[in-house]
Amino acid sequence: MINMNTTGSVKIKKFEGGVTAPKGFKASGVACNIKQSGRKDMAVILSNKPAAVSAVFTTNKVAAAPVLLSKKHVSNGISQAVVINSGNANACTGDKGYQDAQKMAEIAGKAMGIGPENIVISSTGIIGVPLPMEKVQEGIKMAVQGLSDEKGSDAAEAIMTTDTFQKEYAVIVELSGREVVVGGMAKGSGMIAPNMATMLAVITTDAQIASEDLNSLLKAAVDKSFNSITVDGDTSTNDMVVVLANGESGVSIDKGNIDVFQSAIDQVCVELAKLIVRDGEGATKFIEIDVVGASDDSDAKKVAMAIANSNLVKTAFFGQDANWGRIVAAVGYSSANVDQTKVDVYYGDEKLVEDGGVITYDTGIVDQIIKAKDINIKVDLKLSDGKARVWTCDFSYDYVKLNAEYHT
Amino acid sequence: MINMNTTGSVKIKKFEGGVTAPKGFKASGVACNIKQSGRKDMAVILSNKPAAVSAVFTTNKVAAAPVLLSKKHVSNGISQAVVINSGNANACTGDKGYQDAQKMAEIAGKAMGIGPENIVISSTGIIGVPLPMEKVQEGIKMAVQGLSDEKGSDAAEAIMTTDTFQKEYAVIVELSGREVVVGGMAKGSGMIAPNMATMLAVITTDAQIASEDLNSLLKAAVDKSFNSITVDGDTSTNDMVVVLANGESGVSIDKGNIDVFQSAIDQVCVELAKLIVRDGEGATKFIEIDVVGASDDSDAKKVAMAIANSNLVKTAFFGQDANWGRIVAAVGYSSANVDQTKVDVYYGDEKLVEDGGVITYDTGIVDQIIKAKDINIKVDLKLSDGKARVWTCDFSYDYVKLNAEYHT
Repeated sequence: MINMNTTGSVKIKKFEGGVTAPKGFKASGVACNIKQSGRKDMAVILSNKPAAVSAVFTTNKVAAAPVLLSKKHVSNGISQAVVINSGNANACTGDKGYQDAQKMAEIAGKAMGIGPENIVISSTGIIGVPLPMEKVQEGIKMAVQGLSDEKGSDAAEAIMTTDTFQKEYAVIVELSGREVVVGGMAKGSGMIAPNMATMLAVITTDAQIASEDLNSLLKAAVDKSFNSITVDGDTSTNDMVVVLANGESGVSIDKGNIDVFQSAIDQVCVELAKLIVRDGEGATKFIEIDVVGASDDSDAKKVAMAIANSNLVKTAFFGQDANWGRIVAAVGYSSANVDQTKVDVYYGDEKLVEDGGVITYDTGIVDQIIKAKDINIKVDLKLSDGKARVWTCDFSYDYVKLNAEYHT
Repeated sequence: MINMNTTGSVKIKKFEGGVTAPKGFKASGVACNIKQSGRKDMAVILSNKPAAVSAVFTTNKVAAAPVLLSKKHVSNGISQAVVINSGNANACTGDKGYQDAQKMAEIAGKAMGIGPENIVISSTGIIGVPLPMEKVQEGIKMAVQGLSDEKGSDAAEAIMTTDTFQKEYAVIVELSGREVVVGGMAKGSGMIAPNMATMLAVITTDAQIASEDLNSLLKAAVDKSFNSITVDGDTSTNDMVVVLANGESGVSIDKGNIDVFQSAIDQVCVELAKLIVRDGEGATKFIEIDVVGASDDSDAKKVAMAIANSNLVKTAFFGQDANWGRIVAAVGYSSANVDQTKVDVYYGDEKLVEDGGVITYDTGIVDQIIKAKDINIKVDLKLSDGKARVWTCDFSYDYVKLNAEYHT
């Protein structure tokens, strides 16, 4: 499903940096004491001219104020900046919350000399507490003053909440004989689920593209990346993935090069999504789940996500036990078409289950596979050619600890 | 939703015992070394005459051999006995597994002098290992020899796997001026999810009822009991709830008394389901979730189960934190109709969230509520009059420990 072959081709190469890797983007990240820890908590990203914009927001019917506002702001397909605070989600904050999100846009617009309607606003952190607007105002001003094309990392740091490391990725791609860069940053470590959850990502590119094309590109990329990972199955009120394309490379995306550009966007999104899984709360394992042979791709994804979301499967990985029975059970309740007399299960290249029953396998090899940090599981339903790949992590004591001790 | 008022009425009273509480039922539970621990692992329940039967089976598309066989055996609406082994689920065991399940019925039928097609077979325990048929044969014979109308508890003990206590419940109900008894036993402590999971229950009654009526009664009872609980959201390959009605009370169920009889069946199922939640793996809390004001009952149940299945909500309860934000987030992603500006959330009688926003509440009272072992949460969607009640437990270190250390 993921066209990862392009990674190895000459056309797409990993590039240094994150959101400021493409031409014409500045960023900044500062501390303004929304977080009690004193860590960075305000990020600003600015394009040096209005850019085509597309965004995907949380499907949670309880959406935070900045999500509601940003939906409006991106609706005309043009934005020039993104402002994100961490430490406070501005969710479940009623009318005042919405007004506060509007004020954030006004303050930032004034500081940067652009219209507030051209700014995407996002917040992440605790729910139900009004934003400390004086700190927010000061933070936005400081961040805008510090904007630089070398401070993408500061922005990536400023959007972290329970994340243990900042997440950035960029690629350079040759299109129509010229170079285009796609960069990005993300945050999220718990509550990562289908349809995204407490997950933020900002993707930037210096390609020239119509916002309608950007919409379909982003949707496709998100499906195979941020919507193909899960940490604990919960979805949040604040999720957002936004992409800005400012055209500064001088390269236009057209029918001739859109597939390669899609691959570049995909790669940035997939690598950021995988970083989120690696930083899953309490995670000790990174698990890639391939499902093949499904009736269609949608069924394959249902099976893959059922496995990836199973607490029983995830605790078995933490316990380093090749508990194929829990995987087969998850396949069965996934709601996908399944013929239990056809299911094969592999750990790495070693087949453990054939036609729904366990077979003799090399326990030494499987033991080695299950003890590694990175594990690949494959399920072959042997029905048709539907396939999907998703990523998850294991479920450890530390997940419970982090989430039981995180007090409101 | 649960008509629990009948509990307090004169018509339905708690009664001693379990599956042998109604007239004309014998049971037995013995150890035949399927379990390495040497604990009881073979249960037999026998009605002294053919009984009306109804059963609900796992919705998992990977169904164990005994499930496939028992579906056939109950299809004519008549059964006389139930045979259940623990320690081995006879799942993912291929054709041999199905033949072994058939052999169990043959052995038991011969020992009891009844047709194998009149016996419901069930197995619970490890997956993917062939049944040790010599031990099974010996166990069935021993169990049949020991059948007694006082050994319901032995049978309840013999179906335990990771359960820490046996689960029995019975009621006596006055119908048409005469007494009818409904008894039951259940097992299940992990993997308890919507549509049941590694969950077995046997309900017995001495009422006289047509098997078609029994089908609709059981379906309704299961919906508000075993399908209204969750421990970890996984569903298994072996779930079954079976009810036998042998008519020995001489009381026929008809239009005039079926509602009260339904309440009696409901009560036995609900109390057994609640015992399963109380025995949830690693559980330290018993949480009752009421959702009211939904568009309809189905929506209410979606919201209630989303909350009950949320790892974030469950770890917050373990951490004794009134994290209403996680509850509101689960409401939002439940897929039910929700207007976020209307949602109210109560812990016990204390309202914390009104119209989607947190309000000033008595933290002392909420602290006391959240530190109790039994907690009630109520969500009012304020849309219409749909309602549901479900039960869940918290998510502790011990859940992870039990499931990580349970090796295949």
